[in-house]
Amino acid sequence: MSCIQDTECRENGNKEEYLFSPEVLTNLDSRDFRGDYKNGISPLKPGPDLCARPLSSGDYDKGYLDLLTELTIVGDISRDTFLNQFYKMKAYGDNYYIIVIEDLSKNRIIGTATLVIEKKFIHHVSSRARVEDVVVSGEYRGLQLGKVLLDILVCLSKKMGSYKVSLECKDHNVKFYEQFGFEKAPEQNFMHIRYFD
Amino acid sequence: MSCIQDTECRENGNKEEYLFSPEVLTNLDSRDFRGDYKNGISPLKPGPDLCARPLSSGDYDKGYLDLLTELTIVGDISRDTFLNQFYKMKAYGDNYYIIVIEDLSKNRIIGTATLVIEKKFIHHVSSRARVEDVVVSGEYRGLQLGKVLLDILVCLSKKMGSYKVSLECKDHNVKFYEQFGFEKAPEQNFMHIRYFD
Repeated sequence: MSCIQDTECRENGNKEEYLFSPEVLTNLDSRDFRGDYKNGISPLKPGPDLCARPLSSGDYDKGYLDLLTELTIVGDISRDTFLNQFYKMKAYGDNYYIIVIEDLSKNRIIGTATLVIEKKFIHHVSSRARVEDVVVSGEYRGLQLGKVLLDILVCLSKKMGSYKVSLECKDHNVKFYEQFGFEKAPEQNFMHIRYFD
Repeated sequence: MSCIQDTECRENGNKEEYLFSPEVLTNLDSRDFRGDYKNGISPLKPGPDLCARPLSSGDYDKGYLDLLTELTIVGDISRDTFLNQFYKMKAYGDNYYIIVIEDLSKNRIIGTATLVIEKKFIHHVSSRARVEDVVVSGEYRGLQLGKVLLDILVCLSKKMGSYKVSLECKDHNVKFYEQFGFEKAPEQNFMHIRYFD
């Protein structure tokens, strides 16, 4: 049984809710996974005591925001503020797919990545998917968990019917993303205005 | 009176609905506009017989999708399919800001640009804004309308409290976007997987 289907992982307290249905992940076609895994790891079996699943309303207490501080600035966020944003995202239904990896032996979130779906009128009224906010906690690096997260999100983007999936990354991560089929878009410049950190 | 506030522009038939409230645009602070305009043009006064406003449910009949074909592939889209996507976007409330420029003398949509707001947990539970799908119809180019569209969207992104606004563009458009404060992000690579056109 894959971790995502594990009852222990799914129902950790009565009040917890997932950002989206775990079936979205368990229904992915494993033939679409592209990562080259060692040691019996796969997206649905990321390792002993590790579980890949949707973000849950209970993950505030499992260090989800602490993990994000390993990626960038988060700030001092109360549980209410977290839950307010969580339920706004959840209300959208089919827009935010945040997945996490939990270390069940420590009740800690140790990896996360987000797929955002943007509805379009162009390209046959389809959608565009984006990979955002990918991070694996320092002590868990080297365990193929970044690969697990990306493989799930890329499969998901295909399943959602998006005409493309994209991301921005630093130079040293280009090779990592190429294994999933990402290519540098020719002559495309990424530009931004930063208002605050 | 600015075009956006014009009743003629606002109520073109009883059944039309805007994607978002026109007040979102009229309430923008004009001191934030950055484009260098000639001939008395400004974001809220884009020219004689021209009106900048939110996308409307009636714009299917005003050539909105025809305009998008000048940008990329759209496909053969029925009115029902258009309206279905329109109302899905509208239901999100604060996610999709598609603005259009209408030539009121021809009842034609001749320019459009989209601001998409992505909610985040990072950066103090704020949001990230993206400029998407910018196009001005061929015969209306050179009339500063791209500037009008971008100025409105950049102002809007600031007002929405996003920590940054970003876009991807071809090399020849870099200079155009720089006038609004966009900078090339150092060492950032834009990568994608294309599933279909």
